[in-house]
Amino acid sequence: MSTSTDARPADKRADALKTPAHRNAKDARFEEEARDLERVLPASKKVYIQGSRPDIQVPMREITLTDTPVGGTGAKEGEHNPPFYVYDTSGVYTDPNHSVDLTRGLPKLREAWIEERGDTERLEQLSSSYGQARERDITTANLRFAHIDKPRRAKAGANVTQMYYARRGIITPEMEYIAIRETQKQHELTDMRQHEGESFGAGTPSIITPEFVRDEVAAGRAIIPNNINHPESEPMIIGRNFLVKINANIGNSALGSSIDEEVSKMTWATRWGADTIMDLSTGNHIHETREWLIRNSPVPIGTVPIYQALEKVDGVAEDLTWEIFRDTLIEQAEQGVDYFTIHAGVLLRYVPLTAQRLTGIVSRGGSIMAQWCLAHHKENFLYTHFEEICEIMKAYDVAFSLGDGLRPGCIQDANDEAQFGELKTLGELTQIAWEHDVQVMIEGPGHVAMNRIKENMELQLEVCADAPFYTLGPLTTDIAPGYDHITSAIGAAMIGWFGTAMLCYVTPKEHLGLPNKKDVKDGIITYKIAAHAADLAKGHPGAQARDNALSKARFEFRWDDQFNLALDPDTAREYHDETLPKDAHKSAHFCSMCGPKFCSMKITQNVREYAAGLDHGVNTSTGDLSDEEHRIKRVDTELVGQVGEASLDEVRQGMAEMSEKYHAEGRQLYKEV
Amino acid sequence: MSTSTDARPADKRADALKTPAHRNAKDARFEEEARDLERVLPASKKVYIQGSRPDIQVPMREITLTDTPVGGTGAKEGEHNPPFYVYDTSGVYTDPNHSVDLTRGLPKLREAWIEERGDTERLEQLSSSYGQARERDITTANLRFAHIDKPRRAKAGANVTQMYYARRGIITPEMEYIAIRETQKQHELTDMRQHEGESFGAGTPSIITPEFVRDEVAAGRAIIPNNINHPESEPMIIGRNFLVKINANIGNSALGSSIDEEVSKMTWATRWGADTIMDLSTGNHIHETREWLIRNSPVPIGTVPIYQALEKVDGVAEDLTWEIFRDTLIEQAEQGVDYFTIHAGVLLRYVPLTAQRLTGIVSRGGSIMAQWCLAHHKENFLYTHFEEICEIMKAYDVAFSLGDGLRPGCIQDANDEAQFGELKTLGELTQIAWEHDVQVMIEGPGHVAMNRIKENMELQLEVCADAPFYTLGPLTTDIAPGYDHITSAIGAAMIGWFGTAMLCYVTPKEHLGLPNKKDVKDGIITYKIAAHAADLAKGHPGAQARDNALSKARFEFRWDDQFNLALDPDTAREYHDETLPKDAHKSAHFCSMCGPKFCSMKITQNVREYAAGLDHGVNTSTGDLSDEEHRIKRVDTELVGQVGEASLDEVRQGMAEMSEKYHAEGRQLYKEV
Repeated sequence: MSTSTDARPADKRADALKTPAHRNAKDARFEEEARDLERVLPASKKVYIQGSRPDIQVPMREITLTDTPVGGTGAKEGEHNPPFYVYDTSGVYTDPNHSVDLTRGLPKLREAWIEERGDTERLEQLSSSYGQARERDITTANLRFAHIDKPRRAKAGANVTQMYYARRGIITPEMEYIAIRETQKQHELTDMRQHEGESFGAGTPSIITPEFVRDEVAAGRAIIPNNINHPESEPMIIGRNFLVKINANIGNSALGSSIDEEVSKMTWATRWGADTIMDLSTGNHIHETREWLIRNSPVPIGTVPIYQALEKVDGVAEDLTWEIFRDTLIEQAEQGVDYFTIHAGVLLRYVPLTAQRLTGIVSRGGSIMAQWCLAHHKENFLYTHFEEICEIMKAYDVAFSLGDGLRPGCIQDANDEAQFGELKTLGELTQIAWEHDVQVMIEGPGHVAMNRIKENMELQLEVCADAPFYTLGPLTTDIAPGYDHITSAIGAAMIGWFGTAMLCYVTPKEHLGLPNKKDVKDGIITYKIAAHAADLAKGHPGAQARDNALSKARFEFRWDDQFNLALDPDTAREYHDETLPKDAHKSAHFCSMCGPKFCSMKITQNVREYAAGLDHGVNTSTGDLSDEEHRIKRVDTELVGQVGEASLDEVRQGMAEMSEKYHAEGRQLYKEV
Repeated sequence: MSTSTDARPADKRADALKTPAHRNAKDARFEEEARDLERVLPASKKVYIQGSRPDIQVPMREITLTDTPVGGTGAKEGEHNPPFYVYDTSGVYTDPNHSVDLTRGLPKLREAWIEERGDTERLEQLSSSYGQARERDITTANLRFAHIDKPRRAKAGANVTQMYYARRGIITPEMEYIAIRETQKQHELTDMRQHEGESFGAGTPSIITPEFVRDEVAAGRAIIPNNINHPESEPMIIGRNFLVKINANIGNSALGSSIDEEVSKMTWATRWGADTIMDLSTGNHIHETREWLIRNSPVPIGTVPIYQALEKVDGVAEDLTWEIFRDTLIEQAEQGVDYFTIHAGVLLRYVPLTAQRLTGIVSRGGSIMAQWCLAHHKENFLYTHFEEICEIMKAYDVAFSLGDGLRPGCIQDANDEAQFGELKTLGELTQIAWEHDVQVMIEGPGHVAMNRIKENMELQLEVCADAPFYTLGPLTTDIAPGYDHITSAIGAAMIGWFGTAMLCYVTPKEHLGLPNKKDVKDGIITYKIAAHAADLAKGHPGAQARDNALSKARFEFRWDDQFNLALDPDTAREYHDETLPKDAHKSAHFCSMCGPKFCSMKITQNVREYAAGLDHGVNTSTGDLSDEEHRIKRVDTELVGQVGEASLDEVRQGMAEMSEKYHAEGRQLYKEV
């Protein structure tokens, strides 16, 4: 594999500025958005690692570091610190060789791979009646994305899921791409120091091979959500033997937000590290909003199709029918949605089990289906038609995210009969989906106190046969609305450690309102923290390298490197500037907590000199002992043991030398740079 | 015990407005601050629970709740929701019967209790030479707090620690006060539903008695930090068998912040829930800043005396002497500092063990002592003079917070030989302090990955004989500067669950700069979340009541009650207003996520009606089964089992009835209030 930054044609951005003569207002807003999107993070550069063929170009963000400064922190002065590479979900937006135009969408990265498999065909027209109706609807013409390809579908009888290929021993370019992406150039790491983790049965090789990716997908332990109608997405994988991933929910509601706001939230979320995006729109123009999102999203897009189906029956759950839902699945599959949340586990017999709950059914999809079941006194049609749903999924490679419609909405309702009953049913449905080679992940809670989280993970692994778990938090207390990104990050980090493959973020607006861009970023960074804390605790190979690199920078007062290695360099730098605004301070040998006169980190230089001295046989006897020093006599004995039988004179002399040496060299604590 | 809101004289605030004619600028600023301080939280009222004598008045915050609205969420309509009581650290500032004047300080709540014990005496003058010098220093006259009492000290040979009393079977008013405070009016709770916790050996009775408090203090499992020279403080306890507490660090540095800024941060921190405050000032006027803080603090104040001692030798660690440190201890003890962080475990022989660390010694106090040891090649004077320190502590009832000077500064350095070696020495010192009946808690890390946190707690309990653990975080990853309140809240919640008694907060500015008021509040709320999540997981009696009350309010769309029960009502309300600004929406039967047309919570009413129907023998057979419905046949069988042998006709009829009933009653999803 070779790193090539010039794998793309020369800078196109000049051309990009030559925008079409007449553009409408939205296009203008998108233009502005595009310029923001092109900003790369400080000291960062988009690089590509080439796979076995030139069209496998795996993006990473290269962070350039400075050399270790001279003038002493006890570290090797002038040491070269190699660039650090991080997993990059921001897409080509941050590639200077790509000109951003949100009105045209992203390049179709995977199209050739899909083509060459020869098992799909372009349709003359959309298959869903709703999709066709929208095409003809002139009232939404101005909202529609302008450049929509004809949809692609599996040829008659074909199965185009990554699981289908994996089980037949085929390694797809998507799988190789993922192997390179997950390996994260670990072979180039200089500081591989890492503590042993506790993996609870997860097993990740230090180098991820394409074969390993295939095996995990074939076994159902991991999924690669990538609809053949979303060729713009960069392949990624969700499974407990890979890096823990995070999802960001966006979407408008009846109460507000527009298409360009949602596109802006999506690109913003992926910029900061969202591995997938769920579009939970329930307001107007759901169809058009989704089109804009998919065409511009470098990451997989998930939806909850029942939301749109409910809109089609004007919000009256009992008017929902299998036919309306089926048409919605096909409509969304042909737009390119990569995974569907399907609440097929909300069975009629489970519904009464929620009656005595403190907060009943809080999942929107779950309550829609519960109400439908009650209204008709029939079994959930998502359950009774599950095999037909599988037939649709495998024709486009849409993955299941089996929804936990009965998840607890408060601490009191956690881990109850309704929740765990549904989970067991999701386990049954997983087996059925796998019979169709359809990829599956399982959604989890919710609100759960810390001591009851592990039970959720263990039961899920058991009843769902290691299918990836995808959890919302869980929130570990109900008493902090406004801070539920934090109440849930505690639970998310823990359940990620225990084996959850993807964490659905929670923003500070949870329970209170729709997140704005700031909330989205707060949610993302908080969940990147939870996911990374989980990788560290699991002992994921190489996970500690970034902690080591940042801590080394911190210790050596390489402030800019510390900021640039952070999950959010902008905020770290801004906070530091509040106290030490001058650029000079970015290389100052002290931090604002201690100030220039004294700095604890500076001491270590002296400690290291002293330790080096010890190795050369200098004792550290404390000399004449006071009455109170009897307790430490053994120190000397121990040390004499370490340094061999030094006579007391030698010891005294050594001490004197060390003391002189110290006063001569180290007494000055602070040197101005 | 009786609740009395009028235990205090009538409203004095009118008088408070008649401020002295001439006040200097600082006083004016304090006046403004005072008005802010008097603002009570929405729907909240300060109440006092009287103990066995009229001068034991334990404050709580009473939150008034509204009745359950009519118009259906499935809850009992019109149900009365009794007021909810929460632990209150805000002091008399939030008591409308108290007139705030920061220039005069708080009322001396505990003075009579100290007096009546008759084992202390007033000194004619300060005992520390530094304190005396400051009194004479005219250049700081304008900075000095105006109303300072003569210091109090134990009579010759007397020991005035709460541990001394406890071990002699004496129940002090402080202990009774704490018993009432920790019990939190649980006997008045209406919803006591709570899941069993996992306590890892902690044991808390449902009602905390004064005897229990005494026993825990006598055993050394808990401490009551309350210096006889800080009679303004409201008694509180730190121990694993009590509510998990949090500490907030404030203090100026050489690089900025003034006395009134620090007083403002302190009152702000206690307003939001800080159980203790540490003044870590290292800049100018440390002595005067501390005086202002103590006289106005309703919670115990802790310090790190070596910081001020270092200032006295102009920042040159090797110039420190036992005499200078001793004088500093006495100076601060006579001002009223309630606990001292003492880094007596940083032994000469441990220092070299840090040489190969990635980030060496990051504790400021630890590195000061390490440097002193190296410079003199002598053992740490805090260790060699430890018994003399105990003599000082017991004359004022100052508690030890034995400092972890060798705590890890990054994930890589966690749980190493240096850190655990020091911890074992702190265990030895605990036994010595206890020989003097001096109260002790132990400080803990630092930066530790999740899977290595429990080891810290278990070792601490073992080697420190159950002395309370007081930890900084721990931070569970190094890669998120700017968000370390979150990286550390994850570790704090976990170690609190495992048995840590007090959590030292971390603000978003950690590693980057000095916290401002917003950072202080973010740190406090984040740590209140961690502490409460820990109480829930431990199964602390009554801990879940607030979660239940808030979730019930949420479920019943009592928006204002939900906000008012939150840790931060202001932020919760503000976030909600962003999406649904109209006051009408505060009682709207929907939330912004779903909007007016559909709301998941609303469904539960229908579910409960249905469940009620089931109890009356109505079956829920799914009728004619399609080929695909074979899987759910057993559902019916099970249900028939539940409802007895109903014939198919009866079943069909029951279904029809239920369906009609539903359409007649429940079809309308949303009613305007």
